[in-house]
Amino acid sequence: MKRIMLIVAYEGTNYKGWQVQANGITIESVLNEQLSKLLGEEITVTGASRTDSGVHSLGNAAVFDTNTRIPPEKLSYALNQRLPADIAVQASFEVPGDFHPRKCNSRKTYEYRILNRRFPLPTLRRDTYFYYYPLDVEKMNQAAACLVGTHDFKSFCSIHSQAPDTVRRVYSCTVTREGDLITIRITGAGFLYNMVRIIAGTLIEVGGGVRPPEEMAQILAGRDRALAGPTAPAHGLTMMGIEFEDLQKRN
Amino acid sequence: MKRIMLIVAYEGTNYKGWQVQANGITIESVLNEQLSKLLGEEITVTGASRTDSGVHSLGNAAVFDTNTRIPPEKLSYALNQRLPADIAVQASFEVPGDFHPRKCNSRKTYEYRILNRRFPLPTLRRDTYFYYYPLDVEKMNQAAACLVGTHDFKSFCSIHSQAPDTVRRVYSCTVTREGDLITIRITGAGFLYNMVRIIAGTLIEVGGGVRPPEEMAQILAGRDRALAGPTAPAHGLTMMGIEFEDLQKRN
Repeated sequence: MKRIMLIVAYEGTNYKGWQVQANGITIESVLNEQLSKLLGEEITVTGASRTDSGVHSLGNAAVFDTNTRIPPEKLSYALNQRLPADIAVQASFEVPGDFHPRKCNSRKTYEYRILNRRFPLPTLRRDTYFYYYPLDVEKMNQAAACLVGTHDFKSFCSIHSQAPDTVRRVYSCTVTREGDLITIRITGAGFLYNMVRIIAGTLIEVGGGVRPPEEMAQILAGRDRALAGPTAPAHGLTMMGIEFEDLQKRN
Repeated sequence: MKRIMLIVAYEGTNYKGWQVQANGITIESVLNEQLSKLLGEEITVTGASRTDSGVHSLGNAAVFDTNTRIPPEKLSYALNQRLPADIAVQASFEVPGDFHPRKCNSRKTYEYRILNRRFPLPTLRRDTYFYYYPLDVEKMNQAAACLVGTHDFKSFCSIHSQAPDTVRRVYSCTVTREGDLITIRITGAGFLYNMVRIIAGTLIEVGGGVRPPEEMAQILAGRDRALAGPTAPAHGLTMMGIEFEDLQKRN
């Protein structure tokens, strides 16, 4: 029995998120189905980031156990032949048998992309959030900087979350503009439910002048979801990739 | 009666190209229908670039005549309310009554985008052409440079074209790489049917080592479609924008 890791890219538009659900197709359910068919075993993947409905990915990770004799590196090619066009495996390789992608030290990077211009662009409508009113990136950056470090992010956690502990560590959070495209890039050791989207929604309010950048520190200190801005729409969010510290040490 | 110009962006995936056809929805047919409904007149637009099925645009241009009292600049907002999400007008303004977007001096810019990596990325699948084998951008650039100037581009014209004159002027043609994304950017005073896609298909062969860059000059001189490479797939092509020399002089 081997444990295999897959690096998985997807466009989330047509999925009910990562995690298997009673109603609706998910990334996880498609992977389970196609891996089981490919390998002739009952396969159940375990994902690193259980992204929401509509969220995209360039490099989410998942592991599964298999008895296959297909070399691990070849699995990505074989699986991609079976996957729909909106899911594509980027790499496959063996990991230690006790490796769990959520119970380990990792750095996850997300990007929230905002198309900030007068009119929407059809080719970018699925993976950027169109926002008409001018946004001040400098102010957004100033507010974003407050989030870096180990903090209780309760204010930036969905009230539907059952997380017992809302302390998380953010390694970096920056806001940059290239032409009409504003990118909020955040790297952290795990995120709370809706955390990146609530941070994005709050930064958009800061950028639009609804809140001063200084308020970010107060929102964080208040530990109350009602203090932060709205949850920004899912389709602007992309899971960019994950670095697993344990895997790097062992390799 | 006023002549109005629209700058139109679209994702071409779900359309049979720009031009009205007997079977299939086109960008032009959607604009005609929605403008007619909005203005209560029978409207027929005239496009600058009659893009192929599947080709995208950030800034194609079209003109139409109307008696409306809606201020020209407001038309873009009103029309966008009625357009589907894959078509969005970027600007609307009045032009001289005798202005014809194809019978005038203009510079049109197209980009052909190639995703050159081991595995496809789902979020880029609709507007980049995925190409697995390594491409040498320096060689592609060398070949592209041969095309700049006024030449007979018969070798780069679809055999289904009825153009009596195949001489065209190319102002610039460059190939650049940013990470996995290779962009062929070409600006010219009008293009023949499939010209940019045949140039892209030929440059991909040069980049892949199938042809040496020096062959480009011979292909051009041969004036024979059979000498050039294949027509690259439509979905990699985007009409980026048009500069109208006459309009700039008059404004």
